Amino acid sequence: MTRFLRPNIARMAGYVPGEQPRDGGFTKLNTNENPYPPSPRVKAALLEAVTDRLRLYPDPMSAELCRAVAALHRVEPGMVLAGNGSDDLLTILTRAFLGPGDAAAFPSPSYLLYATLLQLQDGRPVTVPYLPDWTLDRAALAVPGLKLVFLANPDSPSGTAMPREQIAQLAETLDCPLVVDEAYADFAESRFHAIPLLTDHPNLIVTRSFSKGYSLAGIRLGYLVARAEIVEHLVKVKDSYNCDRLSQVAGVAALRDQDYLAATRSKVLATRSRLTNALRALGYQVPESQANFVWATGGPPARETFQQLKDRKILVRLMAYPGYPEGLRITVGTDEEIDRLLEALHQIGESRDRRTEPPPTR
Amino acid sequence: MTRFLRPNIARMAGYVPGEQPRDGGFTKLNTNENPYPPSPRVKAALLEAVTDRLRLYPDPMSAELCRAVAALHRVEPGMVLAGNGSDDLLTILTRAFLGPGDAAAFPSPSYLLYATLLQLQDGRPVTVPYLPDWTLDRAALAVPGLKLVFLANPDSPSGTAMPREQIAQLAETLDCPLVVDEAYADFAESRFHAIPLLTDHPNLIVTRSFSKGYSLAGIRLGYLVARAEIVEHLVKVKDSYNCDRLSQVAGVAALRDQDYLAATRSKVLATRSRLTNALRALGYQVPESQANFVWATGGPPARETFQQLKDRKILVRLMAYPGYPEGLRITVGTDEEIDRLLEALHQIGESRDRRTEPPPTR
Repeated sequence: MTRFLRPNIARMAGYVPGEQPRDGGFTKLNTNENPYPPSPRVKAALLEAVTDRLRLYPDPMSAELCRAVAALHRVEPGMVLAGNGSDDLLTILTRAFLGPGDAAAFPSPSYLLYATLLQLQDGRPVTVPYLPDWTLDRAALAVPGLKLVFLANPDSPSGTAMPREQIAQLAETLDCPLVVDEAYADFAESRFHAIPLLTDHPNLIVTRSFSKGYSLAGIRLGYLVARAEIVEHLVKVKDSYNCDRLSQVAGVAALRDQDYLAATRSKVLATRSRLTNALRALGYQVPESQANFVWATGGPPARETFQQLKDRKILVRLMAYPGYPEGLRITVGTDEEIDRLLEALHQIGESRDRRTEPPPTR
Repeated sequence: MTRFLRPNIARMAGYVPGEQPRDGGFTKLNTNENPYPPSPRVKAALLEAVTDRLRLYPDPMSAELCRAVAALHRVEPGMVLAGNGSDDLLTILTRAFLGPGDAAAFPSPSYLLYATLLQLQDGRPVTVPYLPDWTLDRAALAVPGLKLVFLANPDSPSGTAMPREQIAQLAETLDCPLVVDEAYADFAESRFHAIPLLTDHPNLIVTRSFSKGYSLAGIRLGYLVARAEIVEHLVKVKDSYNCDRLSQVAGVAALRDQDYLAATRSKVLATRSRLTNALRALGYQVPESQANFVWATGGPPARETFQQLKDRKILVRLMAYPGYPEGLRITVGTDEEIDRLLEALHQIGESRDRRTEPPPTR
């Protein structure tokens, strides 16, 4: 029966998410989860929501959540759409804007899902390289007929971000919607946030996630903010009941505890700074990160180090992009986790030095 | 920016789910929710799962859930795919099999989402009418180039179901995948269940839901069972983390409490029988239902009755399909809820009789 599959689906490889080991013994620095637990208020709200009412469908429009998002960002609730994780929203956007043969652009190295989503729609990918200083090679965007542009800001794996005025310039240059994927924006300075640009830039669409800043990767929740006339159409593409009762409740509670977000964020930022410096001292090149991970290249061979860390039960993410050196994307864990990682990298370095030393004379 | 939308998306109306009133004062018999709460074991499992681990991504493949499903249906775990509600799975299937201009067939009257999903893929709908005795007009399926066929079994709104041997015949006639949507199968006799046919019918794909039988509409969970070589491709189409941690836990706990399912099911079936007889006594035509709702036509004008019930804070679903009389789809609620409905229908009937009586002579 696989002969009935659409040819683009049959031949594609599929997106491979980062490893989720069932073995709890790993120090898990590979999928950019927040090392701190969700807000106690989120847990309290969830416990209260485990009632007989789970037999009822959730609000299909997640209205209370959208109102809370709108209040936070000072936009109209009609400009907000909730999703089953921001991946759901990226899926909705590609389905709404891209059909077979349609061209969409995204940077590289960046989130690999954009290419997968485009393949699922049988679209045509236009890759926009990052230059060595992690600015975009904007000339690559001069492609006629572009239907959609994705930009992860902060980017993954680099952790670098484009300031708001550069996003504005980009939006002005483009004659198509620009999706700014702000999954990591909670860890970035506010001058990198694009939502304030919506007033003057109707082609801007910003996606956000509860997975990272709000420590809720396990409940699957995200949202997008765009002009209301766009949101009205996107509603038709989403599953009727895409966000469940529990995640809606968790999202509202999380948004209402901005103090908790600020407190965990500042711990992550302090550890990120320490991790960046330590890796640089070990000889890695590490761009200045605005996210909850860092991107380390230029040190000892990344693939070997990845495996040696894994042997020591430390998981980081090995990432390879055509035209760029392999590197390690390392999530900013707790201070203890990062101490463990740095200690392991030291040991690995020392054993490598011993191996490469000339054999002792007799 | 709406000019950048795909034309099929821009012009379509979108699926409208049944009303979910925020006002809790309604007797809600409109969206086929189970009137009984989820199993106490589900609630216990959920309460236990509200931990710091919600910061971590869920298992992308919902492996434990798939194993539990596989054990229940005596199939291999690789034949099971979990979804964010069975709507998610129906979406995955249309995206995998249908591109622009591709033809897919589904019965009418049936679940309206099939037409919406097809529009989203810019496909070509082939409608297969139900005959007056609620059997399918199979001649309408003799369309060259069909890529996919949907069949809701039990069907909605009729509640009627095709026995397994008829599904087998249909699968044998078709030269394309046949999706049997068994959202309501938990309320049907087992002779209507299609999963046992998978051994001999490689083109069969069966979807199931936790929303109805397991009283979990609020957590969004469903699964499909198909040949493993099909499932392998469908995995590429789904969102990486489509089922969250809490729903996976709830699903496993629900599957493990088959006694509870059997107990609530038998209450629903007893009430369904009583409701069917009472509606017939009121002059409605009601086909024999294998689901947790009944379909009432041929009584007083459905639209008027719908509104009069709503005025009395009783919500049922008014459904209109081209070529068929309007009718009321009524969820089998608790006995108390059905008493309330029947009492209201009596009152509505009496006040109609008074209006239509000749004016009293002076």
